[in-house]
Amino acid sequence: MADPTGIDALIDLMARLPGLGPRSARRAVLVLLKKRGQLMAPLAQALAEVALSAKDCHVCGNISTTDICPICTEPSRATGEICVVEDVADLWAMERGQVFKGRYHVLGGTLSALDAVGPDELGIPRLVARVADEGVQEVILALNATVDGQTTAHYIADALAPTAVQITTLAQGVPIGGELDYLDDGTIGAALRARRKL
Amino acid sequence: MADPTGIDALIDLMARLPGLGPRSARRAVLVLLKKRGQLMAPLAQALAEVALSAKDCHVCGNISTTDICPICTEPSRATGEICVVEDVADLWAMERGQVFKGRYHVLGGTLSALDAVGPDELGIPRLVARVADEGVQEVILALNATVDGQTTAHYIADALAPTAVQITTLAQGVPIGGELDYLDDGTIGAALRARRKL
Repeated sequence: MADPTGIDALIDLMARLPGLGPRSARRAVLVLLKKRGQLMAPLAQALAEVALSAKDCHVCGNISTTDICPICTEPSRATGEICVVEDVADLWAMERGQVFKGRYHVLGGTLSALDAVGPDELGIPRLVARVADEGVQEVILALNATVDGQTTAHYIADALAPTAVQITTLAQGVPIGGELDYLDDGTIGAALRARRKL
Repeated sequence: MADPTGIDALIDLMARLPGLGPRSARRAVLVLLKKRGQLMAPLAQALAEVALSAKDCHVCGNISTTDICPICTEPSRATGEICVVEDVADLWAMERGQVFKGRYHVLGGTLSALDAVGPDELGIPRLVARVADEGVQEVILALNATVDGQTTAHYIADALAPTAVQITTLAQGVPIGGELDYLDDGTIGAALRARRKL
């Protein structure tokens, strides 16, 4: 049993992080307690600083420490391409791919009648305005291959239809390094339909 | 890619916690960024407070927010029994068992010639002094069943021999709910040797 004053409360907070349960939160807090100077104090400070300075980018919805995120302010990324993603995690994943050199639009979710998430909550009118304002030639819909993701993709395509911008979506197929034997039938079918000349 | 100013540094710090790698640290930071008010700010504050106030108990070596930990100051725990554990994690584990009602002595490790950890580093002279000062009748050695743990246990038993205090150790055997089929041979042998009348 830890000291009831502060350590238990800290363990409870840590246990609310994804990937940490009560047991691993306890273990993490013990390591922190042993490395008070090298790890716990810097972590507390980094968390406090980011909690204060982090904000949603006014333009694309990315999380950043500035009002407009570094991707939106980078002049070399004004390529006339906007990649629409569901979540900041997806934006980070796209950036790790190091292929896309344009800008983003983070929806922050998918359309959902049950959760009362409509086009306004996802910033879809803002996306339509950006396409006109920024002289965008291509909108890449990088939404997840779920029913909700695809419904949202179709809605966005309809909303962008009047602007005559080119709308594309990520290719579906066999992942790099993937073995056919371990792939689901739907992916194999999609890869076969989208086969291309070698 | 996150904002290079603060978010990346925060992910690096989080990834140094046990149980979190670079990928799960990123996921945890994303959740924190989304719950800036409800989770990130309170966690930063709790970490800062504990980092400032946490200290090792002067008497037993437990980590607490007071100079002498609540276990050492609790009058009902002056039972004349001291339980010797390697680590604060072991003390917490013993407390979760809710059976031991005495006080503790946290060594902070085991004897190790390679790592230059001697009796003084583990507070063994302090333990011998406590046995005399506190009128201790029984010292329970709850050290891990490793070679280092058992070497340390034998050293402590020798050091305590002049005080004529009773020295005991935890029973070894089949865990509650354990199935024989899944137990290692050493545990089965130990449980058989220590068999008792039903």
